[in-house]
Amino acid sequence: PSNLPGYATHQVGVAGAVFDEDTGKVLVVQDRNKTVNSWKFPGGLSDHGEDIGITAVREVLEETGIKSEFKSLLSIRQQHNHPGAFGKSDMYIICRLKPLSYEISFCPQECLKCEWMDLKELAYCSNTTPITSRIAKLLLYGHKEGFHKIDLTIRTFPAIYSGLFYSLYHKELPEAYETKRNL
Amino acid sequence: PSNLPGYATHQVGVAGAVFDEDTGKVLVVQDRNKTVNSWKFPGGLSDHGEDIGITAVREVLEETGIKSEFKSLLSIRQQHNHPGAFGKSDMYIICRLKPLSYEISFCPQECLKCEWMDLKELAYCSNTTPITSRIAKLLLYGHKEGFHKIDLTIRTFPAIYSGLFYSLYHKELPEAYETKRNL
Repeated sequence: PSNLPGYATHQVGVAGAVFDEDTGKVLVVQDRNKTVNSWKFPGGLSDHGEDIGITAVREVLEETGIKSEFKSLLSIRQQHNHPGAFGKSDMYIICRLKPLSYEISFCPQECLKCEWMDLKELAYCSNTTPITSRIAKLLLYGHKEGFHKIDLTIRTFPAIYSGLFYSLYHKELPEAYETKRNL
Repeated sequence: PSNLPGYATHQVGVAGAVFDEDTGKVLVVQDRNKTVNSWKFPGGLSDHGEDIGITAVREVLEETGIKSEFKSLLSIRQQHNHPGAFGKSDMYIICRLKPLSYEISFCPQECLKCEWMDLKELAYCSNTTPITSRIAKLLLYGHKEGFHKIDLTIRTFPAIYSGLFYSLYHKELPEAYETKRNL
């Protein structure tokens, strides 16, 4: 194994699935300048030093005008030789967000269309990407049976060597396992 | 928003939690050249173009001599201004692996110690890192109540624009949601 320190090999992008539990609608966009106009979730690249949830909320606001808050991490996508990343690898993270505003004012440089779509319609429509469709089905499952079934929640831990902090995302751990009680 | 293409901002590392369901033991190492000798899972940086699961299996083999296979993704850690990454951000992914061999032959350049440790002991011992402890508790939860409670499983999808393929990791989706049957 090499003893050289590591270098950056990945760009990290984040998409925000802004889902309104009250109406059952989810925020979707169609990108400008694409040959295939598919519905997808708004999102974009993380800025240097930016947390995943912050990127999701910022990108959703920039693209659609909708304010939202981070709820959970839903999925991670990895792709190599990404055409938009000079052949580097691409890590794309999909978050669940809760809307804090509802009036769309989308960015015309980035989006062709933007709307609140019925989640079930998105889950089973044909003019979407395979991954958007899959995440819509996952959200439908969470909406019907509880978001604890699909959410990775965030916890912060100290790093023992550097004095910095880590953000860790994983499935919720029942209280009994935290405390060793009754195990 | 910038129209410039993205560039690599993150290094991606992967750790492998090799857990043997039959014995209840998990593979742990202590790094050489650390002032605090804590038990942790073996792992290291992804090579260019290498899938997460492949990195985990490779790093475990290089560090410990143990052969294993990828089962699931358990957790994602994000940290900024990482001291080992020239101030870049660090994305560290923790996978669950199944052992295919049991005889340890650890790399003395990287490890001070390596052993199969009882999972419950690791989950509640003090000489480990906060994240290793947390993941050990999560594995204990999975071992007792079913790994479907903690696993993110992998699916592969086509990318509609580039003709390439994506790997997507998320919680298992019940069959009924795939097919829209009985929803």
